Amino acid sequence: MENQASRDIAYMQMALNLAKLGEGTTSPNPMVGAVIVKDGIVLGKGWHKKAGLPHAEPEAIADVAEEHKDELKGATIYVTLEPCCHTNKRTPPCAHELLKHGFARVVVACLDPNPQVAGNGIKILEAAGIECEVGVLEQESMELNRVFFKSMKSNLPFVHLKLAQTLDGKLSTMTGDSKWITDESARKMVHSFRKRYDGVMVGRKTLNNDDPSLNIRFGLDDSGKIPYRIVMGSISKMDPLSKVFNDQYTKKTIIVTTGADYQSAPDDVVKFFTEKQIRIVFAKCERNEIVIEDALAQLKAIGVHSILVEGGGMLASTILKKQLADKMTIFVAPKILGNGIGYYDEQLDSMADALNFKNVEVKNIGSQAMFEIDTRS
Amino acid sequence: MENQASRDIAYMQMALNLAKLGEGTTSPNPMVGAVIVKDGIVLGKGWHKKAGLPHAEPEAIADVAEEHKDELKGATIYVTLEPCCHTNKRTPPCAHELLKHGFARVVVACLDPNPQVAGNGIKILEAAGIECEVGVLEQESMELNRVFFKSMKSNLPFVHLKLAQTLDGKLSTMTGDSKWITDESARKMVHSFRKRYDGVMVGRKTLNNDDPSLNIRFGLDDSGKIPYRIVMGSISKMDPLSKVFNDQYTKKTIIVTTGADYQSAPDDVVKFFTEKQIRIVFAKCERNEIVIEDALAQLKAIGVHSILVEGGGMLASTILKKQLADKMTIFVAPKILGNGIGYYDEQLDSMADALNFKNVEVKNIGSQAMFEIDTRS
Repeated sequence: MENQASRDIAYMQMALNLAKLGEGTTSPNPMVGAVIVKDGIVLGKGWHKKAGLPHAEPEAIADVAEEHKDELKGATIYVTLEPCCHTNKRTPPCAHELLKHGFARVVVACLDPNPQVAGNGIKILEAAGIECEVGVLEQESMELNRVFFKSMKSNLPFVHLKLAQTLDGKLSTMTGDSKWITDESARKMVHSFRKRYDGVMVGRKTLNNDDPSLNIRFGLDDSGKIPYRIVMGSISKMDPLSKVFNDQYTKKTIIVTTGADYQSAPDDVVKFFTEKQIRIVFAKCERNEIVIEDALAQLKAIGVHSILVEGGGMLASTILKKQLADKMTIFVAPKILGNGIGYYDEQLDSMADALNFKNVEVKNIGSQAMFEIDTRS
Repeated sequence: MENQASRDIAYMQMALNLAKLGEGTTSPNPMVGAVIVKDGIVLGKGWHKKAGLPHAEPEAIADVAEEHKDELKGATIYVTLEPCCHTNKRTPPCAHELLKHGFARVVVACLDPNPQVAGNGIKILEAAGIECEVGVLEQESMELNRVFFKSMKSNLPFVHLKLAQTLDGKLSTMTGDSKWITDESARKMVHSFRKRYDGVMVGRKTLNNDDPSLNIRFGLDDSGKIPYRIVMGSISKMDPLSKVFNDQYTKKTIIVTTGADYQSAPDDVVKFFTEKQIRIVFAKCERNEIVIEDALAQLKAIGVHSILVEGGGMLASTILKKQLADKMTIFVAPKILGNGIGYYDEQLDSMADALNFKNVEVKNIGSQAMFEIDTRS
């Protein structure tokens, strides 16, 4: 039995590694991997590549060589997420697929949080007499799919806040100059982050000051993925010459602003964005500020399930105050600027009241420190 | 010859390791170690323990067992610093000591920068026909004695600036609360720093806000060393109830202030510090501020050859602006405070003008980042 348990872990790890190959392309679906094993031999491997394409289980079945297809009867399949059982989607339910091929054992890392599945996939398999085991590398699988799990439980997208700062906590000079705080090794890492998320967001001032492309460079764009480039703030103050409004990917640009701001914008501004066919999300406004929860919920509703927020200071401050970040990455460069733009404008009297993150990993990237913060306490 | 060279490096490394045993107790002298070798056998080892006590060479000679004393004739001695030749001090010149015992070869890591020696020790040995080699692990030896080398070349003490900050670059709240930004692992490290230096300095506000003992705790005070506790600022604003003015080590407390400030201080303040016999250094004053270079030079003149500056923000800002730190250690804790006391009040328009440190090591101390910065570019 002990051997069986350690074999189960090894094959599930293999399935998790396969799942990761789908990073950045499966949204809104989770990353899932599957491995088919019989008598200690791996017959097939598969992973979910993209929403609309087959799930991991049929991929693994299709991977089995024609001369071995008969051996599926009585085989074990390792899947990182519970096989689905719902039919209101583009692909057939996997649980039925497994029954059809006569699998003897199904090992699953974690249940599918989708309320249409949520244990029903396992029930169908068990009712048919298949041995099922749930929970092998469960934490690892849930961690891999944090975005998907949040997506199922919340009306807000998963938010990863990324900041690049000087040692003395500044994102830019008072005049908005931030080029460059970090070196290429850190900036390259940010591009690899962008690949993982549906959208990349900046505030209006960062747009105007930096004119960022918000795309995936550094030879990392082999998936051809362009995340939504989301700019939040007053539309009439956004520089229409910005790259994200004029490059070839304007269909992937979203402006988040308020109805009042849009109505008061000059005609030529409205005309410009209309002609460019740039999508505009109108968020609620309170005390002359965009209600960020509403903005995020609306973005989620149109399919942006995960967002990398890259600043600037005002946007970061709002997200920190309202505790909307699921994850944070803060690069600290060995530079000291003096006065400049910070990112948290609270006024506290006691050090004990400071935001104090417990789940932190510090890594060394070049001569920079990278704080990786998981905001779950 | 190649074997000889690698043996020389190995024995010199042993001598350097011995030298380090004197860390924190040899000032104003350098740390020096010595190893005596003959026919591949180590006959004796020694290191300089404290100013006034014997140098490393006589220590190593004394370490040779009585029955082996004859073997010193023709032996090799490895010393991390050139043997001394000057006589205006408490111990006899080592070069003559080596001649007396008939050493055949003297291997030295680096020359003594003391102008009274500076190659003359080697000259005496070579003139007597002893084979001398200089430069084995030279950089390592100079690095070990950075404080001493600075001391010989400058009228200012070696300054190590240490700061503990939140991620957003704050040393305390606006009201001065800083307890605690870092965790015990970082604070313990600071106590081990204090042991290395002649003095520990804070500004007047830090004294009043934190009431620090500035001693060496955490079971690290086995040397019995108490560094000078130096407080800089307006004497009339210093809290007389502070620990450093009232504990059993008041002889190790130094106040740096200006003559004008002292003269305008209330009589009871003057009486208090006079009765406590606390040493006061009067530094020059310009635009109502202490001229820090003058303060540091005066401290050096009274025997404070090295200082660990522990803040607060104003003192750190002055030291940074005037580039007076030889070394910096900055602990960054995963906390975000918002408004608070920073440590560099320059106003720059371009990120390219920020202080940009090149010689940086980032380490992970608990969930904190520790930036170790060597300010030599």
